[in-house]
Amino acid sequence: MSIVMSVNAGSSSLKFQVFEMPSEKVLAKGLVERIGLNDSVFSIKVGDEKFEEISNIPDHSVAVQKLIDALIEHGVVNRLEDIEAVGHRMVHGGEFYSDSVKASDEAEEKFEACIPLAPLHNPAGLVGYRSFKEALPNASHTFVFDTAFHQSMPEENFIYPIPYKFYEEDHIRRYGMHGTSHKYLVERLAEIEGKPVDKMNIITCHLGNGASITAIKDGKSLKTSMGFTPLAGVMMGTRSGDIDPAILIFLQNKYGYTAAELDDILNKQSGMLGLSGISSDSRDIEDGIKAGNERAILTEKVYVNRIIETIGGYFALMGGCDAIVFAGGIGENAIDIREHVCEGIECLGVKFDAAKNNVRGKEALISAPDSKIAVWVIPTNEEVMLARDAYKDLTHGNDQ
Amino acid sequence: MSIVMSVNAGSSSLKFQVFEMPSEKVLAKGLVERIGLNDSVFSIKVGDEKFEEISNIPDHSVAVQKLIDALIEHGVVNRLEDIEAVGHRMVHGGEFYSDSVKASDEAEEKFEACIPLAPLHNPAGLVGYRSFKEALPNASHTFVFDTAFHQSMPEENFIYPIPYKFYEEDHIRRYGMHGTSHKYLVERLAEIEGKPVDKMNIITCHLGNGASITAIKDGKSLKTSMGFTPLAGVMMGTRSGDIDPAILIFLQNKYGYTAAELDDILNKQSGMLGLSGISSDSRDIEDGIKAGNERAILTEKVYVNRIIETIGGYFALMGGCDAIVFAGGIGENAIDIREHVCEGIECLGVKFDAAKNNVRGKEALISAPDSKIAVWVIPTNEEVMLARDAYKDLTHGNDQ
Repeated sequence: MSIVMSVNAGSSSLKFQVFEMPSEKVLAKGLVERIGLNDSVFSIKVGDEKFEEISNIPDHSVAVQKLIDALIEHGVVNRLEDIEAVGHRMVHGGEFYSDSVKASDEAEEKFEACIPLAPLHNPAGLVGYRSFKEALPNASHTFVFDTAFHQSMPEENFIYPIPYKFYEEDHIRRYGMHGTSHKYLVERLAEIEGKPVDKMNIITCHLGNGASITAIKDGKSLKTSMGFTPLAGVMMGTRSGDIDPAILIFLQNKYGYTAAELDDILNKQSGMLGLSGISSDSRDIEDGIKAGNERAILTEKVYVNRIIETIGGYFALMGGCDAIVFAGGIGENAIDIREHVCEGIECLGVKFDAAKNNVRGKEALISAPDSKIAVWVIPTNEEVMLARDAYKDLTHGNDQ
Repeated sequence: MSIVMSVNAGSSSLKFQVFEMPSEKVLAKGLVERIGLNDSVFSIKVGDEKFEEISNIPDHSVAVQKLIDALIEHGVVNRLEDIEAVGHRMVHGGEFYSDSVKASDEAEEKFEACIPLAPLHNPAGLVGYRSFKEALPNASHTFVFDTAFHQSMPEENFIYPIPYKFYEEDHIRRYGMHGTSHKYLVERLAEIEGKPVDKMNIITCHLGNGASITAIKDGKSLKTSMGFTPLAGVMMGTRSGDIDPAILIFLQNKYGYTAAELDDILNKQSGMLGLSGISSDSRDIEDGIKAGNERAILTEKVYVNRIIETIGGYFALMGGCDAIVFAGGIGENAIDIREHVCEGIECLGVKFDAAKNNVRGKEALISAPDSKIAVWVIPTNEEVMLARDAYKDLTHGNDQ
């Protein structure tokens, strides 16, 4: 039995869970927010008890110290040495990593080389890792990349039809994101169905504030909707997803927008927020629909149609599939959106069961028994994947 | 019996055909190239005879005069008054036109208002029209828009998930292109199958140097792959089609490219040319494949996969379809590409017949008799559509 942590560090946040492995029992979980700002918030849940504290937490090192102290204080661990392994969510592993890797100087170096590919996320991951390494120097640390699962995409599905030098020199290609989530979903469904993972042909829809859809063939990512960056693919809370690239050129010509301004418009002012004018939160859009707001109705239709089109496209690309999985905040909870998507893909062989679909945040089969394609809701669990890979490195001493 | 011309004016070119209507017999066709440059080329084909002349043609008015003189000289018409109607290919009709319209001051004004949406093509169309109107002031002139057929798209399929003001203020939305071709294809297939056009549920693939795919439901465009501009959608000869929009932001940040440079990279240096490094012509790519060139092989795979994905997406979006049509230079002639696409969409119900597919540039059913989806090759004919609409205006006096 070992105690293993999962860590997801953002630029001003730190999310963690403490697992007992290999049972995967969650001993504690929590979040530090507003790191480096005033009134930082530290919250932790141990069993059913929640604790919250507001103070000034100047950096990630202080945050890590605070959370380890809290784990000891609340009896989750006795001493910091009890934490034997930490799995770190490291966003972008570029073309270096198709799997998690035990932390090392070399791994750190390669990860740093990927910073241009994820200029906001990778530095945060590094800061988080270094803070934990300082606090827990004897623990085994593992890097888990959000891009790794998608490294199985064949070149014809990851290369862009732009001058090839941009791939060779600038590494511009489709990488995809949410790999840890898509991998969890296919492994979990294989477990439910009692099938080997490499026999799984499914489409996984991770629909949260960010959203991506993956065609998984023989258990491997064949294509995914996010691209060079998380802007691509389906429409999201504040991101446009795919649009005619010439729109950027038009806007730049007409308004003189800088690259940073275009980035802000398409990543932060678009998607559900930009189209509806209401909110980036699908629950607010649903309220708008109930109130008869036309732009809210339009927003949901666009959102649903883009998912239908992506599923149809991947269905064809992979030569048919056996199951479709919904996950993420919207995928797990938005009953209406799931219903509209499933109705839209009946022509692919989906037979939907409205009664079974009346579920939020729980594992459920929502298609009819005679549906050619099984449709599932599976709450995703990226944290347990981090803990699993960290535990694997701890127990197998995999330090390649 | 009337003589009707179709005209397609580019910035330095002018393509024309002369029809006897309503029989649709082609009396002559030709092309003026390098207008405004040295060594302009005027070529005309009357029956089986071809004539070519090299001279300096300073502008479209001179080109029009030259071609009318040639029509008289070669006995196609006796006097210029014999040309009773002209159908002009006017690229972008914006949201004004969902059908062709008889030329008028008002139509000209609205068309001019669409120039920002097609800054290269619309001015050329206007120059062409004005030159013909000057030469044939008593003829009936009709504007035929490449965007008109796609105006039936519902808002959820034409709006982009970006701030809504860009639609309201700048008219940024999906317009689509090649509408005249897609409309010809659905009307022609309805004729072949003896079905009313409004019962047609098909996907039309216009694959030329530019390429677009349209989901046609109940005879109307439901969605098409070109977007705000002809850059969007599937990969083309020199255009990228859809890519992660953040790639433009990355390139702008890294290389300081201007909007014009990005435009040039994505519209003129990308697609088959950019990816293969060989050529924008699919025939050269095929030669490369035969010679074992890896980038040529990759290029065709990307091209084929994007078509498969788009067809699959539209199949789902429209709730299934009865037929798929290939047209355009590649669609009509590239046997291998058609074969790879058809093999890739077997899961949708296509049963392909390799022997029947062994055809270039001719109308042919290339699917097996028991294929759930009929697959056709239909050479497109935008010119006859221009002549038909011009003849309709002439005979019905439709001048709304």
